[in-house]
Amino acid sequence: MPRDIFILTENELRRAVHLDLKAIGVVEQAFAALGTGKVIMPPILSMAVPEANGEVDVKTAYIPGFEGFAIKVSPGFFDNPGLGLPSLNGLMILFSARTGLVEALLLDNGYLTDVRTAAAGAVAAKHLAPQNVDTAGVMGAGVQARLQMEAAHLVRPFRRVLVWGRDAAKAEAGAANIAEKLGIEARAEPDPARLVAESQLVVTTTPAEEPILEAEWLHPGLHITAMGSDQAGKNEIDPRALVAADLYVADRVSQCEKLGELRAAIAAGLWKGGTPPELGEIVNGKAGRTSEDQVTICDLTGTGAQDTAIATFALTEAKTSGAGSVIKS
Amino acid sequence: MPRDIFILTENELRRAVHLDLKAIGVVEQAFAALGTGKVIMPPILSMAVPEANGEVDVKTAYIPGFEGFAIKVSPGFFDNPGLGLPSLNGLMILFSARTGLVEALLLDNGYLTDVRTAAAGAVAAKHLAPQNVDTAGVMGAGVQARLQMEAAHLVRPFRRVLVWGRDAAKAEAGAANIAEKLGIEARAEPDPARLVAESQLVVTTTPAEEPILEAEWLHPGLHITAMGSDQAGKNEIDPRALVAADLYVADRVSQCEKLGELRAAIAAGLWKGGTPPELGEIVNGKAGRTSEDQVTICDLTGTGAQDTAIATFALTEAKTSGAGSVIKS
Repeated sequence: MPRDIFILTENELRRAVHLDLKAIGVVEQAFAALGTGKVIMPPILSMAVPEANGEVDVKTAYIPGFEGFAIKVSPGFFDNPGLGLPSLNGLMILFSARTGLVEALLLDNGYLTDVRTAAAGAVAAKHLAPQNVDTAGVMGAGVQARLQMEAAHLVRPFRRVLVWGRDAAKAEAGAANIAEKLGIEARAEPDPARLVAESQLVVTTTPAEEPILEAEWLHPGLHITAMGSDQAGKNEIDPRALVAADLYVADRVSQCEKLGELRAAIAAGLWKGGTPPELGEIVNGKAGRTSEDQVTICDLTGTGAQDTAIATFALTEAKTSGAGSVIKS
Repeated sequence: MPRDIFILTENELRRAVHLDLKAIGVVEQAFAALGTGKVIMPPILSMAVPEANGEVDVKTAYIPGFEGFAIKVSPGFFDNPGLGLPSLNGLMILFSARTGLVEALLLDNGYLTDVRTAAAGAVAAKHLAPQNVDTAGVMGAGVQARLQMEAAHLVRPFRRVLVWGRDAAKAEAGAANIAEKLGIEARAEPDPARLVAESQLVVTTTPAEEPILEAEWLHPGLHITAMGSDQAGKNEIDPRALVAADLYVADRVSQCEKLGELRAAIAAGLWKGGTPPELGEIVNGKAGRTSEDQVTICDLTGTGAQDTAIATFALTEAKTSGAGSVIKS
């Protein structure tokens, strides 16, 4: 008996899903569920395709209370730019959590991942950054740098943004972009130490393999969200900073100790903090910043729970707006 | 820049892909590649959804020389029949092995899995069964029982089929089905010991959790393919039979020791055979049956390499026949 499967293209998803407080709320809800321990989230399936300088990751999670669960496939093929193609792609498949039947194919080419990643940054900022953020700094100048600033601005309406990038021209362009998008002051800052010194909220969004943010730069009343490291070879934050901070928070401990900043701190023999709290526990109020002067760090590796949340949300939003097409299968 | 993604529904796939020597050849090629050690095949991603009595498995593999790689998602939701829905479903996504871009969505609801699983049975029979098979026995009376007999008949054109099932009526119906499909004698055999005694090739296709085929029933010139066990709780073959056989072959050792018949033999403390050969090595001639009188067993848990092979094949076949539709994404 043929059944309806909903298909949404990238353009349709871009029209239906925006990086707004609603999307952030759904991702926050996913973290809250993760914090209760009731989410089922298997380890990431990861396959390298060395002949094409590629890799593919598959993430999923079942969140009680969500009608569907997503399976997200994220290929990264890093020779693609030479072929005139983007490195990152992928899609999400949404299944009914009651019957396992395919409900929707979300052909987002990574757009929903961008949104749910930035939304996680906003969740971290909402629950961990000091209440008063005058200046936000972002390290990195790509799409995610801009999205992280957009998302964080929704929960901490800062006055200005500083942008650092290894490529000064890209940092300038990124700052101009952010200034235009948010309608606030934004400028490139070539000195990363100064960027951190002048910011109360810093988000790192690079694929760095050596720290770009030194422990000496920490100062009272600073929150850092590190979202660049999602592989064993990456490291943005000086491992000593994780120890020096008043509070280090993982999106998922089992992932961060393999793929995040925590991995580097463990590898350096510096981490003696035992099992750190997870962002979901912070959302649920089990721990958190206890004064404006504390230094907090949140390590985001990206969770299947965020994918299930954003995919479920995207289907609802698209149906509401009448977007998409249906195929009988 | 929108790109074309090919979409094929179950009906289109059923018209384009048949269980024939061509499909068997492609699956054999996948095993040959597995046997060279050059295939990249990560462990299966598996997630239980206990609230809905469901589970979902994700398999993939990169096979050098194949233009694409498949990611297959197989949900099994075992309360579905009560809702008038099939328990097993799923789809395959075919990606370019060069760029990681989505090439095709194969909305097969498990059809391609049925074909590639039966094709693997034929590969096992081709390379391990005695040359002369007069009678083939099948234990189990479902779809896969029929497909296994169809596939095996293409490589060992036996004269008759015996069918055993726990439910006698289903075994009768299954036998009638096979007789009609293959145009040969097929009858239900209520005594499994007699089924094995009269067969030179036996395929077990049940979800049994306790052995249904006893070691005492082994006889010279018998080949058994056990394809039912694909989870840690399943077991079709008496573990002593694996030890008593002249040759035990795994489709993938790392899977069979966790999910296959080998698991039960290891758990029983009986397996002292070290690392057994894999079916791909048998295809490549590194080991095999050395006389008509030997007893051989092949343990099939299902590999991502088969999925990549059948998905690549299905897209080619569908394009040749002009089937399918295209979506811009």
